[in-house]
Amino acid sequence: MSQVTILDVSLRDGSHAVRHAFTEAQVRAAAKGLNAAGVRYFEVSHGDGLGGSSLQYGLSATDELKLIEAAASECTNSDVSVLLIPGIGTKQDLQNAVTAGAKMVRVATHVTEADVAAQHIQLGRELGLKTVGFLMMAHMAPVEKVVEQAKLFESYGAEVVYVTDSAGAMLPQDVTVRVEALRDALTCDIGFHAHNNLSMAMANTVAAVQAGATFIDGSMRALGAGAGNTQTEVMVSVLEKYGYATGIDLYKLLDVATDVIAPIMQQPQEITAGSLVLGHAGVYSSFLLHAQKAAQQFGVDERDILMTLGNMKAVGGQEDLIYEVAQQLQRA
Amino acid sequence: MSQVTILDVSLRDGSHAVRHAFTEAQVRAAAKGLNAAGVRYFEVSHGDGLGGSSLQYGLSATDELKLIEAAASECTNSDVSVLLIPGIGTKQDLQNAVTAGAKMVRVATHVTEADVAAQHIQLGRELGLKTVGFLMMAHMAPVEKVVEQAKLFESYGAEVVYVTDSAGAMLPQDVTVRVEALRDALTCDIGFHAHNNLSMAMANTVAAVQAGATFIDGSMRALGAGAGNTQTEVMVSVLEKYGYATGIDLYKLLDVATDVIAPIMQQPQEITAGSLVLGHAGVYSSFLLHAQKAAQQFGVDERDILMTLGNMKAVGGQEDLIYEVAQQLQRA
Repeated sequence: MSQVTILDVSLRDGSHAVRHAFTEAQVRAAAKGLNAAGVRYFEVSHGDGLGGSSLQYGLSATDELKLIEAAASECTNSDVSVLLIPGIGTKQDLQNAVTAGAKMVRVATHVTEADVAAQHIQLGRELGLKTVGFLMMAHMAPVEKVVEQAKLFESYGAEVVYVTDSAGAMLPQDVTVRVEALRDALTCDIGFHAHNNLSMAMANTVAAVQAGATFIDGSMRALGAGAGNTQTEVMVSVLEKYGYATGIDLYKLLDVATDVIAPIMQQPQEITAGSLVLGHAGVYSSFLLHAQKAAQQFGVDERDILMTLGNMKAVGGQEDLIYEVAQQLQRA
Repeated sequence: MSQVTILDVSLRDGSHAVRHAFTEAQVRAAAKGLNAAGVRYFEVSHGDGLGGSSLQYGLSATDELKLIEAAASECTNSDVSVLLIPGIGTKQDLQNAVTAGAKMVRVATHVTEADVAAQHIQLGRELGLKTVGFLMMAHMAPVEKVVEQAKLFESYGAEVVYVTDSAGAMLPQDVTVRVEALRDALTCDIGFHAHNNLSMAMANTVAAVQAGATFIDGSMRALGAGAGNTQTEVMVSVLEKYGYATGIDLYKLLDVATDVIAPIMQQPQEITAGSLVLGHAGVYSSFLLHAQKAAQQFGVDERDILMTLGNMKAVGGQEDLIYEVAQQLQRA
């Protein structure tokens, strides 16, 4: 039976879904349960990674270092991962996270910008961490570009490179071609991270594993940004049906999902009209609020704005474009 | 572009999720929206079909004939379907539904019991209805059995035969082999109805369409029994990405989902521990409550009871078995 390593992101991607309001007690309870259930890694950070707590990205209710420390103190089998987006988090943030007990770092960049991560990957290795490169919005780049960028990550020292479907915009064949290409081009491990905007997170996860990915992200009750992630406890059941071993005790994981995560949730992880349109268009979830404002200002449909941005392959940082698109739609 | 006919079951399968409390005003608003969005058929009945309102299956807050009438009065493009489970609904119920405005009947039986439906299918045709056979719990029978039973439906006069994954227990290959076999063996149309207990409803739906199904069920916001159905508005987006036409205006459908269905929901359509275990074990959702009672009585884990029942291929009507299994687990 092939082995798949599960990384649970409830305490990091889920941070978005609870407006960064995790408490130490909540994180401790979830960490204790994940450790007991045999989940190899789980991630604890602000939703936008180390240092994300800010007016721009949302203030954390509790210092993330305290949360990392609480989580790490519960680990006897599991290890705590942290996410680091260069430009948001710093090398100092990473050193502090290691002091707090982190054993893995995932350095995340836009799919075409792996080169900004070289120092952070190198530092991760120097600090003795399991070190991972995380290519976000991977649906936006053609396969050759994904391979090129993944090779950069590997050359810096990444031990795993992730294909990350940040917008939940991929279909299984999109996952298959990317993971297979990395499988052929790299010697390190391949990971996959899904969002459920098109209700395809689980099918995409199965496609990734069948194509050779061995590190897979999920979150309990799907707690994560937008429509949420692949639901970890469901994935354990589904992967087992496909003949893959996760080493996770399903009943124990179900208990954490039901007793610890469900009560924390501020709203259910549904596919709303907003998250569907984001997934359909394949644009950043941070565009939604701007599109709503621009739609009101110019008297156009926010969905048309998002669809247009998707066709233009707009990326984060191009928020001004949203208002230009709205104006053009008004004229048209 | 191939055409797929969508049948929305929010107002029938969704009846379970709102404890059969739909009001005339709610049904009218949803019907108006579905008709405007171009959804060809939508179903209105008690969750367990015509005549389901009872202490055993749950009392309807509003007489279903009034709901059917309200829905039908809003239809200029769409047609109203009703579900009929022989033994729960009667031929008289069907005649009354037709008087109220129903234009389609779906006669539902357990996957091995199509023969109980002969008279009802024949009556549907006599009444001039679009007439459909609906094979529930289709994962429990091998492909040859599904084909045999579907042929019975066709011989009675069914114009469409559905493969129905009542427990949300199927994976895409389970769907593919069943739909392809029916495609080869029947001349009538093939339909598919999914539940999302394993987070595979959308992938299973795509598999069904690719294998030749042309009638597909969905529900807005996934409102339905257990973990809910394939989410209709998401399906419209996904099928379009796969190159299938649904004839549905996505924006109009999103408006119904957001403005009419979401406010009606009593709880979100999440995959809870209970619905996951039902899907994993592949057993009737009505077993859950009995399993919980039996677990308490015999001091065993309800999940072990359900998994054992799944392995035994227990079917509805065998509720006594649940307590026997609990007792055996206690002894073991």
